[in-house]
Amino acid sequence: MIEAEIELTGHIIDSMILPKIFGAIYDLNGEFEVLEFRIGQTKNEYSHAHIRIFGKDQQHLNMILGELQKLGAVVTEKAVDAELMPAPEDGVLPDNFYSTTNHPTFVMINGEWIKTENQEMDKVIVIREGKPHSIPMRKVKKGELVVVGNKGIKVIPPERSRKKEVFSFMSSAISSEKPTLSLTRMIAKEMFELRKKGGKIVVVPGPAVIHAGAAAALSELIRMGYVQALLTGNAVAVHDVENSLFGTSLGMDLKTLENYEGGHRHHLMAINVIRKAGSIRNAVEKGILKSGIMYECIKNNVELVIAGSIRDDGPIPDVITDVMEAQDAMRKALRKTDLVLMLATTLHSIAVGNMLPSTVKTICIDINPAVVTKLTDRGTYAIGIISDIGAFLPRLVQELWQLEGTV
Amino acid sequence: MIEAEIELTGHIIDSMILPKIFGAIYDLNGEFEVLEFRIGQTKNEYSHAHIRIFGKDQQHLNMILGELQKLGAVVTEKAVDAELMPAPEDGVLPDNFYSTTNHPTFVMINGEWIKTENQEMDKVIVIREGKPHSIPMRKVKKGELVVVGNKGIKVIPPERSRKKEVFSFMSSAISSEKPTLSLTRMIAKEMFELRKKGGKIVVVPGPAVIHAGAAAALSELIRMGYVQALLTGNAVAVHDVENSLFGTSLGMDLKTLENYEGGHRHHLMAINVIRKAGSIRNAVEKGILKSGIMYECIKNNVELVIAGSIRDDGPIPDVITDVMEAQDAMRKALRKTDLVLMLATTLHSIAVGNMLPSTVKTICIDINPAVVTKLTDRGTYAIGIISDIGAFLPRLVQELWQLEGTV
Amino acid sequence: MIEAEIELTGHIIDSMILPKIFGAIYDLNGEFEVLEFRIGQTKNEYSHAHIRIFGKDQQHLNMILGELQKLGAVVTEKAVDAELMPAPEDGVLPDNFYSTTNHPTFVMINGEWIKTENQEMDKVIVIREGKPHSIPMRKVKKGELVVVGNKGIKVIPPERSRKKEVFSFMSSAISSEKPTLSLTRMIAKEMFELRKKGGKIVVVPGPAVIHAGAAAALSELIRMGYVQALLTGNAVAVHDVENSLFGTSLGMDLKTLENYEGGHRHHLMAINVIRKAGSIRNAVEKGILKSGIMYECIKNNVELVIAGSIRDDGPIPDVITDVMEAQDAMRKALRKTDLVLMLATTLHSIAVGNMLPSTVKTICIDINPAVVTKLTDRGTYAIGIISDIGAFLPRLVQELWQLEGTV
Amino acid sequence: MIEAEIELTGHIIDSMILPKIFGAIYDLNGEFEVLEFRIGQTKNEYSHAHIRIFGKDQQHLNMILGELQKLGAVVTEKAVDAELMPAPEDGVLPDNFYSTTNHPTFVMINGEWIKTENQEMDKVIVIREGKPHSIPMRKVKKGELVVVGNKGIKVIPPERSRKKEVFSFMSSAISSEKPTLSLTRMIAKEMFELRKKGGKIVVVPGPAVIHAGAAAALSELIRMGYVQALLTGNAVAVHDVENSLFGTSLGMDLKTLENYEGGHRHHLMAINVIRKAGSIRNAVEKGILKSGIMYECIKNNVELVIAGSIRDDGPIPDVITDVMEAQDAMRKALRKTDLVLMLATTLHSIAVGNMLPSTVKTICIDINPAVVTKLTDRGTYAIGIISDIGAFLPRLVQELWQLEGTV
Repeated sequence: MIEAEIELTGHIIDSMILPKIFGAIYDLNGEFEVLEFRIGQTKNEYSHAHIRIFGKDQQHLNMILGELQKLGAVVTEKAVDAELMPAPEDGVLPDNFYSTTNHPTFVMINGEWIKTENQEMDKVIVIREGKPHSIPMRKVKKGELVVVGNKGIKVIPPERSRKKEVFSFMSSAISSEKPTLSLTRMIAKEMFELRKKGGKIVVVPGPAVIHAGAAAALSELIRMGYVQALLTGNAVAVHDVENSLFGTSLGMDLKTLENYEGGHRHHLMAINVIRKAGSIRNAVEKGILKSGIMYECIKNNVELVIAGSIRDDGPIPDVITDVMEAQDAMRKALRKTDLVLMLATTLHSIAVGNMLPSTVKTICIDINPAVVTKLTDRGTYAIGIISDIGAFLPRLVQELWQLEGTV
Repeated sequence: MIEAEIELTGHIIDSMILPKIFGAIYDLNGEFEVLEFRIGQTKNEYSHAHIRIFGKDQQHLNMILGELQKLGAVVTEKAVDAELMPAPEDGVLPDNFYSTTNHPTFVMINGEWIKTENQEMDKVIVIREGKPHSIPMRKVKKGELVVVGNKGIKVIPPERSRKKEVFSFMSSAISSEKPTLSLTRMIAKEMFELRKKGGKIVVVPGPAVIHAGAAAALSELIRMGYVQALLTGNAVAVHDVENSLFGTSLGMDLKTLENYEGGHRHHLMAINVIRKAGSIRNAVEKGILKSGIMYECIKNNVELVIAGSIRDDGPIPDVITDVMEAQDAMRKALRKTDLVLMLATTLHSIAVGNMLPSTVKTICIDINPAVVTKLTDRGTYAIGIISDIGAFLPRLVQELWQLEGTV
Repeated sequence: MIEAEIELTGHIIDSMILPKIFGAIYDLNGEFEVLEFRIGQTKNEYSHAHIRIFGKDQQHLNMILGELQKLGAVVTEKAVDAELMPAPEDGVLPDNFYSTTNHPTFVMINGEWIKTENQEMDKVIVIREGKPHSIPMRKVKKGELVVVGNKGIKVIPPERSRKKEVFSFMSSAISSEKPTLSLTRMIAKEMFELRKKGGKIVVVPGPAVIHAGAAAALSELIRMGYVQALLTGNAVAVHDVENSLFGTSLGMDLKTLENYEGGHRHHLMAINVIRKAGSIRNAVEKGILKSGIMYECIKNNVELVIAGSIRDDGPIPDVITDVMEAQDAMRKALRKTDLVLMLATTLHSIAVGNMLPSTVKTICIDINPAVVTKLTDRGTYAIGIISDIGAFLPRLVQELWQLEGTV
Repeated sequence: MIEAEIELTGHIIDSMILPKIFGAIYDLNGEFEVLEFRIGQTKNEYSHAHIRIFGKDQQHLNMILGELQKLGAVVTEKAVDAELMPAPEDGVLPDNFYSTTNHPTFVMINGEWIKTENQEMDKVIVIREGKPHSIPMRKVKKGELVVVGNKGIKVIPPERSRKKEVFSFMSSAISSEKPTLSLTRMIAKEMFELRKKGGKIVVVPGPAVIHAGAAAALSELIRMGYVQALLTGNAVAVHDVENSLFGTSLGMDLKTLENYEGGHRHHLMAINVIRKAGSIRNAVEKGILKSGIMYECIKNNVELVIAGSIRDDGPIPDVITDVMEAQDAMRKALRKTDLVLMLATTLHSIAVGNMLPSTVKTICIDINPAVVTKLTDRGTYAIGIISDIGAFLPRLVQELWQLEGTV
């Protein structure tokens, strides 16, 4: 038997941190002894716990401590500097590398807790210019110092919100059986207030936005200033251009539902138009593309990232076909984001979700409960709404009009 | 080898009748010879086919003919009277009973084609007062004459609509990727025009209508005169009453999304209120129930059938707890219906679907594609819409307001 | 401001009881002060908390206390007798009635904690022969004493299992991405050991069991003695009889997948056979029905309850068409059950789930994640498995054969 | 009004070709006149139709003819050479380009029908060395001759199979309510016979194969020789390596279901191991990777394509991160394939589906009906099975063992 001590401070009971700590110890077959416990006497007081942890051997203990750390525990005796090891090769990690959570993380360097830059989950921490940075393993350079083990690391999982707001009501419960209009109103309010304060909203739409007839609503959101960056794929861009040029989506008239030329000819024509113009921006500037989501992005200086996938037709020249380059562009566009709207897309939403710290608010709207569950699992401020984007988005615009006094 | 001849007339190619006839013969290992075939030269002309069918033996041939008949074939040599056999016991059929489709069906009696009353699928035909009636087997009385075999029976499967309307565009394709607003507009137009002509609309709502916050929208539909009958279950009635009395649905405030007293206490209180009053009508008349779907049904003389199920709490006194009695009440309420709206319910929608002839227009709205597929399979004029009832229904009301010039 | 005190004892942190207590107080806008808190120093020691609760007024405080009670709190000052009020009418409750959870519940009567009989959720408690009974409101007789308010009531929510077993691993996580074979093995082991100890297993199958070709597997489970009661509906019984008599399910050959006579003729014939025989038992005894799930139930004295629904064809004479009578029969069959297997059915599973105390182990297998989520939400020992019953059930039988040494 | 004539030959009625032709004319508001119609008198005789088509103007007529052509019509007067136009730029098409179906297509060049190479849908046809090739638009070189308009093109949509085999039974109907074991047996037989004849099977697995515990079954399929190429993504490769090295999948023990170190540490360690080794092949050759799907691919010379996506962690060095390069590699691996098994993956299955001619048999197994519907829509010999891959794949192996006489 071998032991270590941890400290916990905060709203550790109602924010589920202490229960998770005990749960993790059970799951990993560890033992514990509570050395000290002071519970916050009222709603606003912090609680504090000091706990001794026992493992079978050092490796077992380390595994337990690693888990507890992710949950916010600070390994007491380890309020020492984090351990660092050089990467053996470009893109290769030392064996005992520390892998990150998506929570704010501090690393002790020269006796000081320093916050990690660009926190993302499942990354590693390297020290660059004396500061810890969360980066993908492929970006680690040979010889760079990588954080290993679990000493000198402090994770701050967000606590349960004490405010009565949509993110606290919804956080645990995803259900198709929520009042859609009330939810829409709350989200509109959140967006309205965020933009008043100059907050940044990123939208991640999937092709269903266009098929379901919500392109006009998303275009209006952009014009109204509610979209600072738009991260998407070739399909969305092409369907949007097809809709703008021909009024169809994969050949179906989005007003009358009549089918023109079954199949994908309009789709390929839309791609050809953009390829001929050289880019979406060119097509807008030449007056070829005169409306739609892509058009509004260009006109309103919305940061636009179009990432490639193996199912792409074409693609149009704006697509970043190397997925690692695309990830980097997405990462850049996501910096300092306050709110992300994920609209009826799985691949892009999961990719974006992987890049966000747990402190960013995310709202995921999809008709498929499985997608919503997957996406809201990891975020602290994630709301999952099971709805039809074709009816939801126009309503959201109506609510925003009302808040802005437009209507 | 044994043979028989069939005749087919109508738009039998583009309405898929002839292809299905050939498909069925292949599937059942029969053979055929085309004796005569005249194809309609233009869009509006009928085609006509005269085909000889071969089976291994009489039983095999009968099986094939039985299938072809359901598809609209008339067995030529059998333009003789239908065969009739007395039922051996109450609710028990003669062995070779004819089982119905949901298509209009004619029976030859004394050399005359007479239309079957109350056409429903998977029923039997008995002769009452000289006329064929489609009834459930449990209603057959000992000694009553039941149609057996497949002579003297003519089924008229509806042909593909030549009109450009939502029921012809959508009939084959169910998809979550349809433009919701355009669809809503088309359905509103259909309802508007139907009501102008005095048509009858039946609504079959599930509990999600209330949970998703669409009770106000359905109440408005009733007030506007778009609901002639409402078929539902105990849960919808109780959730609606809870919403009207307390503003909650299973304890959740439908405006703020706050939870009062988790669990079902409000639900049970709502039941108790109605039980105490004696019925929904009493609760309305005593001024206890002042709004909501149930209230509007009473106030607007909408025919209301509340059928029981084994998952019911309570139930309230208005529930018909015997499911066979409930079926009979539903059947009665469905007479002469022009359009059925099935709103986010599986059990009740399927039950209603089973009772409808294929000539009734049905629109099924659900967030779960599996439900929609199941329900639209059997009807000729069935539209399946995969959407969120909480966003869809309020929009439908908006569209109807616009058509009525209210807004 | 008005106050009350509560006590909590047990593994209240890692079993999430204390966090839920604090969460509920926040949600309901209450305040609290921790008077005393002793945390269990090790895994096996109990923790104890003594907390003062504040509400705005008596009604607000009562609402909060009502919630805390459901979570296991004992209202300290109220270790007095429960309050009782007579029912004003048959099937009508006094206004302030106490509504039950599905957790074991004790009522203080004459200074003594007495356990409630037949614990079910969303019921009321009446005193019969000096003992508390959980019953549906419709069964309350005029003048019977009903528990009201929240004094003198103690709820014991089950604690997190400390055993490493499938019910503790799975309880929180439902996912289609679990290793199916490992899960099947664990469930087989659970069933094997339960039966060795003489435990009672109830199976609740839906029609998909037969459509998916698992009737033989379920029949074998019955023969092997793993089914003590079977609760189902008309559809399962009829599909099973159709399969036994004709080898088809709704006309499709379950071996070759060929369709005989599309539609439902075999289905109606199966119903007619049982109606003619008078009952399933008669059909078995007369040698008409020689195999299948229904046959094995009769032969192996498995308690069989067939409940009616509004979508039933026929029905066969064994069906209880009154849903309230059906509920009573189901309740009776569920007494002293240890384990329930819910197989690909929504309606019947939810109905059964509503009747079970939280201490009964339940395993719900369905291909639709939404069904599984709904069903496993409420039970403490509920496992949800998203799988294909047609592949799962035969494998379960294989695993049981192995455990029994048959193979 | 302007007119043209088309010819149709084959089993055009029961293979639904003629009905679709009439349907398309209606949908596109065209008119027609049947000039000649000879129906096949028996099952095996061809039918023949000669039809005159009317459009409002040349553009309208062309649109109609374009559609009819995709359905197999040969535009009679146009049994002239196909029209060709040079591409204006690299990767840019002449305006009136012909876009392909996935059916075998012949182009008339110098009066001769020549079959198009590498048929894929939504591509264009260029003439290279006198032969038509179906290629993606981005591969068209400036000045290359591209087929435009719709003259001189003949599409051969596959006819309904006259064989009684699983692909004909299942082709239209996707349902979770099919007998899984019977289906598995049929598919095993298909694979067994295909391999006896030296056929080529390509497997496209998704991550759920490993999570659901079916990695051993897929490994066995490879060892048995039933996999000639495996097309997948980084996630599958990494999960498989994690499973081989640690027995876990995202940290969960796939045998005991216990969680080691929540989150993704094992996942990242698996990536690091492969990055360190340089490639999967290196890891196998150095004895680091000793089992699993990847291992078996290397050992059994299965062609392996690992395509990148924006949600990839790592990735491992074997991943093709440029999606267009990845498409090309997939295309190459798919040449001359007889059968494709798509196992619980959306992105990769759709990408592969897009590249297959309609004559390749495809079997898509997924637990999500929406995925299966999407994937089986486009293929002629596509079977959709809604099942749990974790139970299905082991059973498939059992059935193959039986056919091979191994068991």
